[in-house]
Amino acid sequence: MVDTVVVGQRVPRVDALDKVTGRAKYTADLKLPGMLYGAFLRSPHAHARIKRIDTSKAEALPGVKAVLTQAKLAGRVAKIVDEAHGTSMDFKAFADTKVTYQGEKIAAVAAVSREIAEEAVRLIEVEYELLPAVVDPREAVRPGAPIIHEGLKPCPGPDGTPLVNVLRVVDRVEGDVEDAFARSDYIFEDTYVIPRAHQSYIEPQVAIAEVDPAGRVTCWTSTQGIFSVRNNLARTLDIPPHKINVIGMTIGGGFGAKFGGVVDTYAVMLAQVTGRPVKIVYTREEEFLDGRPAPGLVITIKTGVRKDGKILARKAIAFWDVGVQGGGAGATQRVRGVYDIPNIEFHGYDVATNKPPTGAYRAPGGPQATFASEAQLNKIAHTLGLDPVEFRLMNMREGPEVDFKKTLRAVADAAGWWSRTKGPNEGWGVAIGEWTNGSAASSAVCSLQEDGSLKIFSGLMDITGTDTAMAQIAAEVTGVSYDRVSVVRGDTNSVPMAPGSGGSMITFSMGNAVKRAAEEVRQRILEVASDMLEARPEDLDLRDNRVAVRGAPDRAVTLAEVAQQAAKTTGGPIAGKGSFAREPSATTIAAQIVKVEVEPDSGKVWVRRVVGSLDCGRAINPMAVEGQMEGGAAQGIGWGLWEQMVYAPDGRILNPGFLDYHIPTALDLPDIESVLVEVPTVNGPFGAKGVGEPPITPGIAAVQNAIFDAVGVDLHEVPFTPERVRAAIRARQEGR
Amino acid sequence: MVDTVVVGQRVPRVDALDKVTGRAKYTADLKLPGMLYGAFLRSPHAHARIKRIDTSKAEALPGVKAVLTQAKLAGRVAKIVDEAHGTSMDFKAFADTKVTYQGEKIAAVAAVSREIAEEAVRLIEVEYELLPAVVDPREAVRPGAPIIHEGLKPCPGPDGTPLVNVLRVVDRVEGDVEDAFARSDYIFEDTYVIPRAHQSYIEPQVAIAEVDPAGRVTCWTSTQGIFSVRNNLARTLDIPPHKINVIGMTIGGGFGAKFGGVVDTYAVMLAQVTGRPVKIVYTREEEFLDGRPAPGLVITIKTGVRKDGKILARKAIAFWDVGVQGGGAGATQRVRGVYDIPNIEFHGYDVATNKPPTGAYRAPGGPQATFASEAQLNKIAHTLGLDPVEFRLMNMREGPEVDFKKTLRAVADAAGWWSRTKGPNEGWGVAIGEWTNGSAASSAVCSLQEDGSLKIFSGLMDITGTDTAMAQIAAEVTGVSYDRVSVVRGDTNSVPMAPGSGGSMITFSMGNAVKRAAEEVRQRILEVASDMLEARPEDLDLRDNRVAVRGAPDRAVTLAEVAQQAAKTTGGPIAGKGSFAREPSATTIAAQIVKVEVEPDSGKVWVRRVVGSLDCGRAINPMAVEGQMEGGAAQGIGWGLWEQMVYAPDGRILNPGFLDYHIPTALDLPDIESVLVEVPTVNGPFGAKGVGEPPITPGIAAVQNAIFDAVGVDLHEVPFTPERVRAAIRARQEGR
Repeated sequence: MVDTVVVGQRVPRVDALDKVTGRAKYTADLKLPGMLYGAFLRSPHAHARIKRIDTSKAEALPGVKAVLTQAKLAGRVAKIVDEAHGTSMDFKAFADTKVTYQGEKIAAVAAVSREIAEEAVRLIEVEYELLPAVVDPREAVRPGAPIIHEGLKPCPGPDGTPLVNVLRVVDRVEGDVEDAFARSDYIFEDTYVIPRAHQSYIEPQVAIAEVDPAGRVTCWTSTQGIFSVRNNLARTLDIPPHKINVIGMTIGGGFGAKFGGVVDTYAVMLAQVTGRPVKIVYTREEEFLDGRPAPGLVITIKTGVRKDGKILARKAIAFWDVGVQGGGAGATQRVRGVYDIPNIEFHGYDVATNKPPTGAYRAPGGPQATFASEAQLNKIAHTLGLDPVEFRLMNMREGPEVDFKKTLRAVADAAGWWSRTKGPNEGWGVAIGEWTNGSAASSAVCSLQEDGSLKIFSGLMDITGTDTAMAQIAAEVTGVSYDRVSVVRGDTNSVPMAPGSGGSMITFSMGNAVKRAAEEVRQRILEVASDMLEARPEDLDLRDNRVAVRGAPDRAVTLAEVAQQAAKTTGGPIAGKGSFAREPSATTIAAQIVKVEVEPDSGKVWVRRVVGSLDCGRAINPMAVEGQMEGGAAQGIGWGLWEQMVYAPDGRILNPGFLDYHIPTALDLPDIESVLVEVPTVNGPFGAKGVGEPPITPGIAAVQNAIFDAVGVDLHEVPFTPERVRAAIRARQEGR
Repeated sequence: MVDTVVVGQRVPRVDALDKVTGRAKYTADLKLPGMLYGAFLRSPHAHARIKRIDTSKAEALPGVKAVLTQAKLAGRVAKIVDEAHGTSMDFKAFADTKVTYQGEKIAAVAAVSREIAEEAVRLIEVEYELLPAVVDPREAVRPGAPIIHEGLKPCPGPDGTPLVNVLRVVDRVEGDVEDAFARSDYIFEDTYVIPRAHQSYIEPQVAIAEVDPAGRVTCWTSTQGIFSVRNNLARTLDIPPHKINVIGMTIGGGFGAKFGGVVDTYAVMLAQVTGRPVKIVYTREEEFLDGRPAPGLVITIKTGVRKDGKILARKAIAFWDVGVQGGGAGATQRVRGVYDIPNIEFHGYDVATNKPPTGAYRAPGGPQATFASEAQLNKIAHTLGLDPVEFRLMNMREGPEVDFKKTLRAVADAAGWWSRTKGPNEGWGVAIGEWTNGSAASSAVCSLQEDGSLKIFSGLMDITGTDTAMAQIAAEVTGVSYDRVSVVRGDTNSVPMAPGSGGSMITFSMGNAVKRAAEEVRQRILEVASDMLEARPEDLDLRDNRVAVRGAPDRAVTLAEVAQQAAKTTGGPIAGKGSFAREPSATTIAAQIVKVEVEPDSGKVWVRRVVGSLDCGRAINPMAVEGQMEGGAAQGIGWGLWEQMVYAPDGRILNPGFLDYHIPTALDLPDIESVLVEVPTVNGPFGAKGVGEPPITPGIAAVQNAIFDAVGVDLHEVPFTPERVRAAIRARQEGR
């Protein structure tokens, strides 16, 4: 591993001061002159025909500047691209003849105040004819189920019988699972059910749009990717991308859901028709009604093993509850895990249900499929009398730039797995999840200022502390001290291409771009300093804001002096540009051990310990990696124990708010213990791998396994609420 | 000259639409939440001791948030650097014991409204003890004159007698003028007087400053150079430069006066003490009371010539009326012009008078010194019976990358000089001025977007259409069509180093940086397209947003496709960086021929024709060069005929507004005819030289010469007002 000075340090976040002093500017903080406020009319029904829409009373309300419906858009069809999934969803901006989920947008109003906009929404009259709704993907695929998208043809199911309401199928067959099952000593078959979960970012979706008389659009928004938003607006509204400027404001969480299309498109359309800036802010209820949460999953998984514990085959059939649009089927592949499974077959179905569209949530599809995979592995280990850690180690793949076993052993060692003890109703669980960071087109510019400070300029949106990592990388390369590096975000008009902050790709991908830009700066520093010091570049040391001749520390110049000197040479001021795109990175894993205590009478589960390990390749900032591990663990365990979007049979959501949708608080979890494992990947900056998504993946399975260890119930339906745990304990006691 | 497609075209300005639709945002358009308004208490006297300042009533006024005086700043001394002159001026933020000019700042108030701030200013009590003032630099240097800066020592004058109130002396002696005068057939000695002129930008000085709890400063301002403002604030207020972010708003004219220090420093200090944003906007009267106008000049110039017209020697003694601070003495060198004068001697004195400090105005010192030089040359030609154009051609220097004769001949030919005719009281005048563009540290970034559009990002402030030139240069190099290039301005936090837009240096200096950045983009385009088209880079043509194989136009890819493809390669998105600094450029000249008609009874001068020529090296955009020539001609002629800041003997300005200070309007001037001469300079982008300043230099002399040709009066004092012209005509008629 390369010897480093700043990389690997637990430096404070560059944005810490702004955030804790309330100075960071969020989109909702902005108010433009003449700004209007947008609000939506939404369907109260999950499935219904629209017989009539009358906006006349709304339009007559003083202060209302526009009421948009699909009819007024003359049939314009929006195309929303989900970059996290690489899929695109065709849908109209507004429902006009039929609604397919509760909360679907029917009209948008722009008015001089939010209150007037909401009053106008109430004045819009819509006549509905109710249709039967379907909410369970298992029911939705059965012939005879209500058809959500008319015109969508049935497809053949895994056993040949036709399935309806299927948006997309992903099939994969490797080897011969039936033959391998025949050779197996044991076969396990389980069906697991995982509900939809909301990303629950603290800041709701928000955008402000302004359109000038020449049709140029400016959009301020809370987004993970300013170029995603720009390109989406361009495609959706048929505007040339260079006529759109997207300004990314400080973001209050995204977790995959903030790539645009939910509010920005509507703010732009309302600004186009009114000629005034328009702000739209979602309420929390709207988030639950019409956000883009993670899909639910019903998955049947069948695994054949030899009695020595070797896994021979695995087959999975997965029905992803994607709502009216969305994708999950591709993530069915996660049932392979990091194991050497010679025969594997899976069939993933994106099933339409009368629920809002789904989107990406941190390691999309990962927690759901990993739960099923890992829960069953724990069951298998238990049945075979094998230690679940040993069982996993025995079946793990190996390869270059990965060391899955080291990471799993690290968490077991740290948790004291091998000498673990437990009291009454206490249990230990283990699980691992795998992930490979993405990589996308990234560019950055570094420039050394006359005062010796360095700035990094790019289109990177910082949702997790990546600005801090960029500053560390640039400081490391250039010798500028960390406190003198500033990270500056530009808008789409000003910056070269930048990827959205998702797919665990920023430290890897933008980190490489920043490293390359900093290396160009370093090279110029050495060139100029070499002239100033009359020494060869290779004899110079670059550190602590100075360039010194090696072995002669008095022969030195400051970086400020170098910058000033460079500005007098024909080569000009010192600046560097770095670009990077798709070089592959190695897979990483996050392993987790959880200890719980169950109250048998109430079914309540108390989490007593959480220990996680993660192969981060190289921790640019260990504190930031630990932050990701803690956040991911909380979200994974939260999904396992509390989080679920609950729908009534008619498709109405029953818990559209944080009062009834519980996300873990500091009181719900113990301190999370994190173990960093560093197996460098050649293409990562200083060996770093992406760390944003992996930590969420093992949580549900680890908790399930711990509950099983504690009270002997093997729960198949998430979350493990007191009601379910208590019912399972009772059923077990009653021998059911 | 290089063959070009976009360079050399009369493309419309990139900012035209924003400006004519009123969408361009000026600093005064901004209003920040909680913003306060600043106002100044100014001295009503030009020279006085301050006995007492009492701010208590002002502080007690409701709505007043701060009243700053020098005492409250605990003696902090500001250092204002005048980048155009390369000089720095020490002065306190406020007068405390003595005022030295009318309008000098004594206190600044921040209040919740402009009206309250002004009311508070009126409530500040100041007790003065009047001192005698001095306003004429010839009087100011005489021993016994009121001393403006106590402690400033007398210096020896040209004849050895001591001079007082002299801030700086510039002496130059080449050859032996006294010997050459002795060998001359004719000796001419004249004293010329040029008044102070105001830059008269339409938008007054304005700044808004905000200071956060960590002391970080954000400043929005109308400036020619965001880094000049930043560095000035850093030095003045002792703040590290990287804690200051300067955002340059659209600028409504600058002409050298908008490099900071006049209002921004005060906005920042008021924001520091109040913790709230503070806006300061000068009134027009404040512009005249306490702007940084051009210095006046009293110059005695002595020239020796042979009877064949060869100039043998020249000597000048120049007293620059710089006010309490400022510089002009260096510009005395302009009396050399572009002539081969073997013996030359000059002594320039920056003389302090009880008037506001002076600053840069388009070709600083050039119009004043050039007037004296050229007016006397016209007199010499007349006396010797030589044609003034021939006389100049005979004496001109020659050298590499210049062709002064070609430029002068071009204007003479275009004006029909050789066959000119005139009616009664009509006359023709000719003059030339020379200038060499500056060059300073410049960096720019170009990036090719996925839609094939190109953006240029830098810290360039566009005051004269330079954004358009940058777009043309980048379009030329990259093959992106001009309409798809956007020019984006960043703030000091985000951009690499950029020079202030002054010194005629932007097209030359930043143009080179943009060209280098675009060349890096071009190289990457060719690399990527070469792979896509399976052709060698040298066989590819890059034009009209496409790359095609030469001779096989069907084998082509669009630049959008190239950009998208590049983003999938390890080299990443296409971006380029260019840096440039001090490579020398060649001198250029602006020549002008003016025809006037004089009304002998009233003395009024009508300008009937103005023909100018300019060696622009290479016209990146001929329309923009012509714009500079027209603007410069108007300002030069305006100074010659109307513009002057008039001071009473007690130092009070008598015409602090556009009602009494007349700048030429469309009614005052005929259409200006412009002739572009292109003598490329090797180091300029596509051969371009700087064109911003030269056109203002010859105007005063050309008009003076035309009046002489019309009515036979050889005026020595500028401007040539009807009163002066009529008086001169009468004196001539009366044989005086």
